[in-house]
Order: sequence, then C-alpha cells, then structure tokens
Amino acid sequence: MFEEVLNQVKQKQPLVHCITNYVTANDVANVLLAMGASPIMADDPMEAREITERCDALTLNLGTLDRRTVQAMLTAGERANELGHPVVLDPVGAGASRLRRETARQILSQIRVDVIRGNASEIRALALDAPSTRGVDAAGEDRIGETDLETGIGLARDYARTCGSIVVITGAVDLVCDDRRCFILRNGHPMMSRITGAGCQLTALTAAAVASGGADPLRAAAGAVALFGLAGEIAHARLESKEGTSAYRSRLIDAVSLMTAKDLQEGVRYEIYS
Amino acid sequence: MFEEVLNQVKQKQPLVHCITNYVTANDVANVLLAMGASPIMADDPMEAREITERCDALTLNLGTLDRRTVQAMLTAGERANELGHPVVLDPVGAGASRLRRETARQILSQIRVDVIRGNASEIRALALDAPSTRGVDAAGEDRIGETDLETGIGLARDYARTCGSIVVITGAVDLVCDDRRCFILRNGHPMMSRITGAGCQLTALTAAAVASGGADPLRAAAGAVALFGLAGEIAHARLESKEGTSAYRSRLIDAVSLMTAKDLQEGVRYEIYS
Amino acid sequence: MFEEVLNQVKQKQPLVHCITNYVTANDVANVLLAMGASPIMADDPMEAREITERCDALTLNLGTLDRRTVQAMLTAGERANELGHPVVLDPVGAGASRLRRETARQILSQIRVDVIRGNASEIRALALDAPSTRGVDAAGEDRIGETDLETGIGLARDYARTCGSIVVITGAVDLVCDDRRCFILRNGHPMMSRITGAGCQLTALTAAAVASGGADPLRAAAGAVALFGLAGEIAHARLESKEGTSAYRSRLIDAVSLMTAKDLQEGVRYEIYS
Repeated sequence: MFEEVLNQVKQKQPLVHCITNYVTANDVANVLLAMGASPIMADDPMEAREITERCDALTLNLGTLDRRTVQAMLTAGERANELGHPVVLDPVGAGASRLRRETARQILSQIRVDVIRGNASEIRALALDAPSTRGVDAAGEDRIGETDLETGIGLARDYARTCGSIVVITGAVDLVCDDRRCFILRNGHPMMSRITGAGCQLTALTAAAVASGGADPLRAAAGAVALFGLAGEIAHARLESKEGTSAYRSRLIDAVSLMTAKDLQEGVRYEIYS
Repeated sequence: MFEEVLNQVKQKQPLVHCITNYVTANDVANVLLAMGASPIMADDPMEAREITERCDALTLNLGTLDRRTVQAMLTAGERANELGHPVVLDPVGAGASRLRRETARQILSQIRVDVIRGNASEIRALALDAPSTRGVDAAGEDRIGETDLETGIGLARDYARTCGSIVVITGAVDLVCDDRRCFILRNGHPMMSRITGAGCQLTALTAAAVASGGADPLRAAAGAVALFGLAGEIAHARLESKEGTSAYRSRLIDAVSLMTAKDLQEGVRYEIYS
Repeated sequence: MFEEVLNQVKQKQPLVHCITNYVTANDVANVLLAMGASPIMADDPMEAREITERCDALTLNLGTLDRRTVQAMLTAGERANELGHPVVLDPVGAGASRLRRETARQILSQIRVDVIRGNASEIRALALDAPSTRGVDAAGEDRIGETDLETGIGLARDYARTCGSIVVITGAVDLVCDDRRCFILRNGHPMMSRITGAGCQLTALTAAAVASGGADPLRAAAGAVALFGLAGEIAHARLESKEGTSAYRSRLIDAVSLMTAKDLQEGVRYEIYS
C-alpha cells in the first residue's frame, strides 16, 4: 500500500520549501534528496513568498525561531494556501516556550495546515496550550506506547477535529489521524530518539509524500511515517560493530535512499483503527 | 598539473572567510579542513570586515540570505578587494528569487569577484537576469553534457567577458572559463547531486585554491574542480554494500582529505579548449 | 575517578540550553545525546529566558554572533545565574574580532560564568584582550605542549583567578584549572583539529557534566575533557582503511555514545598539578 507513496515521490520529485531550524537543516535537505525529492531552504520574508511559488510543498518547523523567520512562515504559508500546496507544521519544542506556542497558534489561525507532526509532548502542548516538562524530546509521562494507545488516538483525533489538520504523533507507536480514520504504525527504533532531527526529517518527508500523493493525504502521510520508521529499523540492523549514534544517523538517511517498494511491502507493520 | 594546486593549499593553509548558508556550513568548514585550509564563518556586518582582514580569501554564498548577511557580504567584499584577497561568489538558487538575483547583481557591481561558481541554471539566471524553473538544483533543460558543450562554453565565456570574472559551471561536465581560455573537466559522479552542498563545498575549495595558487587563478580554480570531481568518483568507488547517500556525503569529504598528488596525476580527465 | 562523571550524566540526563553557532550546532546536539544528555537550541531573546528555565545548564558559544543572539546570551545567562544553573562560555575565535572579544567581556562582566573553554589562542585573546593571528584554530605560537606546560598552567590559573571561573585550555595537552588546582590531561588525537566543532562539542559536554556532577565542578569539567579526549583516541583507532576526516568526525561521536566506565578507567591519562 505504501510503496505507491514512495513511487509517487520518486516520479514527481517534489520541490519542498523548508523554513526550518538551523540545527537539523542539513539532515532535512539530505533526507529529502535521499527519498527522491528536492529541498530549498529560505527563511526570509523578502523571498519566502516567491520561493514557495516555485515549490510543491511547504514545511514550517518551529525550532530556532526568530521574528524574521516567523514572518517568513506566515508569508509563505499564505501563498502556499493560495496555490493549494500542502503545508506541514512541525511544532518543535512547542511546550518549551510561549513564543513557540504562540507562533503555532498564529500559524494555525492564519494558515490552512494540512498536517501537524510532533511527538506526544508537542501535540499535547498545542492541544492544551500549555507548557511541558522537557525540551524538544517527549517527556516520559507523555510518551504513547501500546498500553495507552486509546489515549493517544483520542488526543490525535480530538486535535485533528479541532484544527482540521491531519495529526501525526510519533513515538514508540506512531499515529496518523484525521477526524475519522487513524493509522497505527509499528515501525521505528529507539535509536531514532538518540539522534537529533529524526522528527524534522520525517516532517519534510511527509510534505514530499503529501505533495506527490494525489487524492489521499492521510495515506500519503502514513506512507512517509511507515517508510521512515522502517528506515529506522533497517539502519539499526545495518550498524556494524563499534558503530554508535552518529553512524546510526548516517545509516538512517542511507536506508531512506536505498528503500525499495519490496522493502516496504515486507517490512511495514500497521493497522487502521476506526 | 593540478597536483601543484593541492600542494600549494597544503603549504599555505589559507584561512577562508565564508559568508555562507546555514544548511551546508558544516560541510563547507569540514571540506576546507580536509583539503588543508582553515574556515572561519562570520556573517554579521559588525565583524565581517575585521574577519576578512585576518583571512586569505572570501566566499559569498547566496543560500539562506537575509538583509543582515547581504550587508555583511558587501562589507567583507569591499575589504577583500582592498586587500587583494580573492572573492568567490556562489549564486545558490539564483533563479529561485529576485532577492538572490538582486543580491548577486549588487555584489557584482560593487565588488570585484574573481570566480563565480554555479550550476548551469544558476549561471543562466545571472547571465540572463531571469528566474529558472527549479530551486537550487539545475533544471533538466539547463544541464550541460557532451552534446551541448559548445552552448555551455559559449554561456560561460560570454558571461566571463561581461562580468570580468572566471566562470565555473559544474554539472555532468565541468567548465572553468575566463574570457579567453576554458578548461573542460570530466571527473565527478551523479551521486554528487543526490546530496546537498556539493556545490557549496566546491566553491570554498576554489577560494582556497585561488588564494594559494599564485599567478594563475584560472588553473587554480580548475584544480579545485578537478580535485573535487575526482573525490566524487573515489567516494563512489569506496561505497560499501548497503551504503547510500549519507555515506556518500561522508566518503566525499574523506576522499578530499586523503587525496594525493598521485591520485590527481592518474585520475583527472580534462582538456583545454581555446 | 571520571567514570562517576559519565554515570551522573547518564542518570540525570541534563537538558542543556545551547546558544551556539549554526556551523556546528548539529554536532553539538548529537554529542549531547550521545553522552546521555539532551540539547535544546534557542537563540532569540523572545524565548531565551524561558528556555533556560526549563534546562539544567547553559552554553554560550561565540561563533557566528549577531546582535540578536548576543542579547539572547545575556538574557539567558542572567536567568541561569538566578536559578543557579552552570554557565559555560566558549569564546570561539575570540582573537578574530573585536565583536567577539567585547561580547565575551560583556558576558563575563554581567554573568557569573562557571567554566570558560577555549584553545590557547582564544584564552590568550581574552586574558590579554588582544587580537590573535589566526581564525578559530589555535595559532602555532600559542599551542601548549609538554615543553611549555608551565606557561600554559600559568595562563590558565591567572585567568581563572581574574575571572573567577574554571578555565579549560584544550590542545595537545589539556588543562582544567581553577585558582588553586589544575588537572593536566593527556588524551586526545591530532585529528580532532582536522574537523570543525570538536571544541564546541566539548563545551557542551562540559556543561552537561557540571550540571550533573554535584559538588565538584572542577572534577566534572575535567571528566568531560578526559572523556572527549579518550573518545578522540578511540575514534582514530577505529578508523578503517580509506576513511578520512569525515569518518573521523562520525566515529568521534560514536565513541562518546559507546563510552563505558571501564574505558575511562583504563584509558584516561591525567595528573593533578598543585
């Protein structure tokens, strides 16, 4: 089912405008290229609108914000809406500061956002408009696993209903929900949380998938999540003796670049909850 | 012929001031160190002039521009001119926004630029002062290969004549031209376009080479292009099973750091067109 | 002795607020995660104070400064002081511009800084308030080795006395001194100076160690230096045939992520000078 998503990205080679933090921008650009898409990073209001016009999708990532980049996000988002380009929001560390929550709120009130992707703490911070206990990583008490799946699905669905976006919550189990359907995806590896930027990368891949996926953005988003989770498993399996977290970071992007339809058919584990 | 360029960089260890985008700044710094040069990144007008004074060369890279960094480029460029330091311009995504083209135009009118390095779309966007269809990657219709070499050489030469700079167009075939001579270089590997920042890296190496190369900047620039293209081939040859684009990115810088005069003598393929 | 430092970081998992340059921010984030700490990068005055409140330590890194980030450093530093969080200053390229020296001076006059970590040229530039000859790397004449240890210790101690901070000077030999005691550490590998950001990474690890180390910040700082130096040796020993500087950069972070108490017990070489 998801191999189609991969094929569509490879065929369309969507150009993704990323207004994103400088910490993981290089990985984000490289993972887009690895999947067959193209990145362009541009975060200044003087060119954000025009850059978005040349692109197929837009990602707004709230890491390392400042006044200038917030303005660029709003300008680019408005133009993406006019052109019907998918917009994906990554509320990095939304619980960590008022600036990030307020920027998220402003974006969500002025821009039609197709997908919001975050960890459980970030989505909770947005949904409840409240701070959370940790920085950019999910706090222990927020993490969603098999035992609290129902709570997680409830959170994702309710928030999807409220904001009218697809909500993706990544963690031990990944959820991709709109107001009616919910994909529960069980790929991934704990090492993904021992490197920075796995979430940012997935956000960009989601934008590429939705921009290429035609009529069903929920399935496209789930496809990106499935692919990246499977890449996380493959990367771990390919680690050699004495390789640690940095090798893992590299092998993760490698796995995206080498992913085949067959890998996806055989490796993806998911169910649809309704 | 080009082994001299490598030796000169290793001997002089030039300090290269890079005003460059944050997406690939880390790779740029690391590839300069790999070749034997030293990087310093500083993009604020408050220190750009002074930093340039301590350096041997300056690169101006138009990715992720904003008003502040444009100002730093002009200030640093002016000072580099006064001191006779080589200035290398990388018009990243020049076709993608008016801001980038106007910044390029402003730089070229106020600063003496020794070398301009871009892909065919970027150079065309500057030469014709027109937008192009893709973002930071060369559009298909712009790419220069064996069948349209004459067109490419014409473009490079005419533009070199117009702006008085050495023009480097990289792609399937690389061209390094001034208004009279043109190096045609045939090293490189398609995987170089599947990672971000190969162009930015080459721009910085070009600055290091020209700063170290003495009397013949055209040959120094061609030497940097030859070395990096050959590194691209070697990186591919050294890829192990199950390694993808991220391993390639790492092996590319590795290949620069391990490059020997003998590798260059045996591996570089070029001709001089006149 | 230093294995305790590693264990404490793994146990406490300190959240480290990094106001740091964009060139090496990704490596800094990844090395913190590798050691068992968590990073959060945020450099805008609008959120710097609030981010620091959620964290356990703060690093102020003077690479790629601008007016906005300087302001964020002062705001965050003030708040960290109020909360008793350790503050670690990295005067990257302090000798390279007046802006960097003046920012360092302003930070040191307004903020209580627990640790200052730099190479010999940077510490000298601060101590003497004078420019130095090279950019961000230690100038040859400044480097501290076995033959001029006494001079180095004198510099570190005098400056520690003047500014009331622990002073860490890294180089061929590493020194970690307060006004009374001095650790002389002899781990590390020359390849650490052939990649960008080793210093920035160590600064962040030092913040994590001091935040987790309880009553003795000098020992915690020395522990971070010992661990990172040993990781530099291990990384070199694990390089495979045809691997160069980029592989080394990756294997360095890998070595941090795989470091055990036993490795530290067996591999660290140091003495205490008094």
